[in-house]
Amino acid sequence: MTVAVTVDPETLADALAPVSTLVDECKIHAEADGLEIAAVDPANVAMVDMTLDASACAHYDADGTTLGVNLDRLEDVLGMADSGDMVKIELNEETRKLDIRIGGLAYTLALIDPDSIRQEPDIPDLDLPATLVCEGSEISRALTAADLVSDHVQMAASPNGELVIGADGDTDDVEVTLDDDDLLSATVSDNVESLFSLDYLKSIEKPIDKDADVSLLVGQEMPVKLRYSIADGDCSVVHMVAPRIQSEG
Amino acid sequence: MTVAVTVDPETLADALAPVSTLVDECKIHAEADGLEIAAVDPANVAMVDMTLDASACAHYDADGTTLGVNLDRLEDVLGMADSGDMVKIELNEETRKLDIRIGGLAYTLALIDPDSIRQEPDIPDLDLPATLVCEGSEISRALTAADLVSDHVQMAASPNGELVIGADGDTDDVEVTLDDDDLLSATVSDNVESLFSLDYLKSIEKPIDKDADVSLLVGQEMPVKLRYSIADGDCSVVHMVAPRIQSEG
Amino acid sequence: MTVAVTVDPETLADALAPVSTLVDECKIHAEADGLEIAAVDPANVAMVDMTLDASACAHYDADGTTLGVNLDRLEDVLGMADSGDMVKIELNEETRKLDIRIGGLAYTLALIDPDSIRQEPDIPDLDLPATLVCEGSEISRALTAADLVSDHVQMAASPNGELVIGADGDTDDVEVTLDDDDLLSATVSDNVESLFSLDYLKSIEKPIDKDADVSLLVGQEMPVKLRYSIADGDCSVVHMVAPRIQSEG
Repeated sequence: MTVAVTVDPETLADALAPVSTLVDECKIHAEADGLEIAAVDPANVAMVDMTLDASACAHYDADGTTLGVNLDRLEDVLGMADSGDMVKIELNEETRKLDIRIGGLAYTLALIDPDSIRQEPDIPDLDLPATLVCEGSEISRALTAADLVSDHVQMAASPNGELVIGADGDTDDVEVTLDDDDLLSATVSDNVESLFSLDYLKSIEKPIDKDADVSLLVGQEMPVKLRYSIADGDCSVVHMVAPRIQSEG
Repeated sequence: MTVAVTVDPETLADALAPVSTLVDECKIHAEADGLEIAAVDPANVAMVDMTLDASACAHYDADGTTLGVNLDRLEDVLGMADSGDMVKIELNEETRKLDIRIGGLAYTLALIDPDSIRQEPDIPDLDLPATLVCEGSEISRALTAADLVSDHVQMAASPNGELVIGADGDTDDVEVTLDDDDLLSATVSDNVESLFSLDYLKSIEKPIDKDADVSLLVGQEMPVKLRYSIADGDCSVVHMVAPRIQSEG
Repeated sequence: MTVAVTVDPETLADALAPVSTLVDECKIHAEADGLEIAAVDPANVAMVDMTLDASACAHYDADGTTLGVNLDRLEDVLGMADSGDMVKIELNEETRKLDIRIGGLAYTLALIDPDSIRQEPDIPDLDLPATLVCEGSEISRALTAADLVSDHVQMAASPNGELVIGADGDTDDVEVTLDDDDLLSATVSDNVESLFSLDYLKSIEKPIDKDADVSLLVGQEMPVKLRYSIADGDCSVVHMVAPRIQSEG
C-alpha cells in the first residue's frame, strides 16, 4: 500500500492527457516498475493503454496499489505548478487520500472507490496488415480536413506505401494522401480501408505533440491502433478505436 | 468552360475576405484576365466589387465561366494550407465541381447554381465631392470609438481637408478628427456629411489591413465608397454603403 | 468647479481598475491634491479606497469637485489610447459633462448625479494583529488553488511568520503556505484565522500586478485588508473584505 512518487508535473500531465481525453475517472495502477492506466470511453469506441516508467520519475516507490482518480482534479492540481517545480505524490494510508505537494502548495485529493469506475478494457492483440508512421501534425491536418465535410473519416493504406485519410460529405469530399515524403515508414501487405467516427479520433489526436512519431496500424474494416511515446520514451501510449461499418458512412 | 488557377492561398483568402464579410455565397466570374466578384448584403445596404488580376496567380487560365461558390467552405479549405503551399483550383467539367489541391490535400467543392444566388449589384458611378485617403488603422479606430456610444456613425468632410468621424449616443458623444497629420491626402470641394449604420462599416473594415491605404469618398447624405488594393495592387476592392437618413440618427 | 487633468491613460486605467472590479458607478472626488474614490460592492462585502496623487499627472487642476462616473464607459474611452497618447479630461461647467481628449479623439462623457450613487463606505481603522507582505503573484496562486475546491478561503497567520491560505472542499482540501522564502515581511503578534468568500478576493486580486508588493492585514474572524500602490507610488489602493463566519464555511 505504498505510493510515493516525485515527478516533473508536466511529464505526469502529458502522461494523463491521452487518458483524460476519453474518460473523467480512471484506475491508476501504481506497480513496482511504473504507473499503468487502461480506459475506454463510455460508448466503448475508443480505448487507451498508458504506461509511465518509474525511470521517468525523480523518485518512485510503489508496490502494486490501485488508485481510483478523478483526472480533472488531478490535472487541475498539476496545472498549479510553476516551471521548475516538482510534484510529490504520496498515498496517505490512513485517510486513503493522495497528499500532493508542489512547492508550498499542499493538496489532499480524495480517491474514488476503484470498483465504482468503469471496467478496464483489454486492448486486443490484432494482426493489422498496415503499419504507417508519421508525425502527429500530419494526422492532425488530415482529421481537420475530414472535419470540414463529415463526421466520419476513412483510412486507407495500400502496398505502394500510401496512406489516404479522407471523408465524403453530403456535397464535398476531401482526401489527404500521405506518401513517401510524408511518412516516416510504411509496411503494408494488402489494400485495406476502414471507417471511423471523427470525434473519437479528434479526441485522441488532440494531446499528441505535433512532432511526435505516431504509428498507425490499419486493417480492412478493423479497429485502428495509434501508438506513440512521450517523456523521452519513458511513457508509451496505445490507442484503439473501433471501426464504423462502411455502409453506415 | 476552363478554370485552372494556381495561386498563393493567402492571396486568394485576402481577396475573398471583403466579399465573405458581407455574403455567404457569391458568383465568381473567372474571366480571361482575372477573377471578379460583385455582391450585396441581404439588406441591400453594403456592396462590394472585387477583382483579382490573373497576374497575381502563378498560373491562370479561364475563359469567362461563372462559378456559384459557398465562401465559407472555400475559405475553410484555403485555411488548410501550410505556409509556402500553393493552391491549385480546377473546374471539373464533368462533375461541375471544383477540384482544389493543396499539397497532398484534395478537396472537391460542390458548386451552387449561380441562378440561385442573389443578383449582383451594379455599384453606381457617383460623383462624390470628398475624397480622403488614410491608413486602415485610422478608420478602425474611429469606428471603434463610434461603437462606444451608438449604432450609427457620421462622416463629415470639409474643404479645409478634415475628416470627422463621430457618433451621438443617448448620453455620450464621440468624434475622431483626422487632419493633415492623419490623412495621406484630402480633396474636398464642399462641406458634406452623411450618416451610416455602424455594423456595415465595421464588417467592411474588419478585413482591411491596418496599414493599407484606404480611399474614402464621401458626399452629402450620399453613399460612402471605400477603395483599397491588396496583393501588391493585383487585387482591387471597392465597397459602397448606403446612407441612413439623418433624422433617423 | 474646476477639473482639468492630463495624465497617461494607462496610469488612470490602472487606478480605476481596483474600483471597477467592485462597482459599475462611483463618485470621483477631484480634490486639490489628487483624485479619491471610495466604494463598496452592492452586497457590502468588499470595499476599496483609492487615491491618485496630482503628482502622477502631467497637468492637474481641481478644487474639490465630486463627479458621478460610469466606470465602464470611462475605461472604454481610456482603452482607445494608442501607446504614448496622453488623455486630457476637463469638466465642462455648462454641460456638466466631461470632455475627454486623446489625440484626435474627443469624447463627451455624461456624468451621473452623485446622489444616485451608492453611499461611500468608511473603511474602519481596525487593529489587525498580522501584517504580511508578498508579491501579487503569490496571492493570485493561492486563490487559484483555493478555487479548485471551494467558494471560500481561509487566511491564517502565526507568530512564526507563516501565512497559510487554504480551502476545505467537499472531498479535497488545499493549503498554500507562504513562509520566509515567499514573504517579503511578516509581523504577526498572535495566531489568527479568518474565512472569506473567494469571489470577492478574486475580484480584488485580478487587477493587481503580479510583481506588486501587497500587504495583507489579517485578524481573528476579522475583515482582511489589502494594501498596495501603483504608478510608482503615486496611487495607493486599500481594500477591505468582510469575513464569513467560520461555521458557515
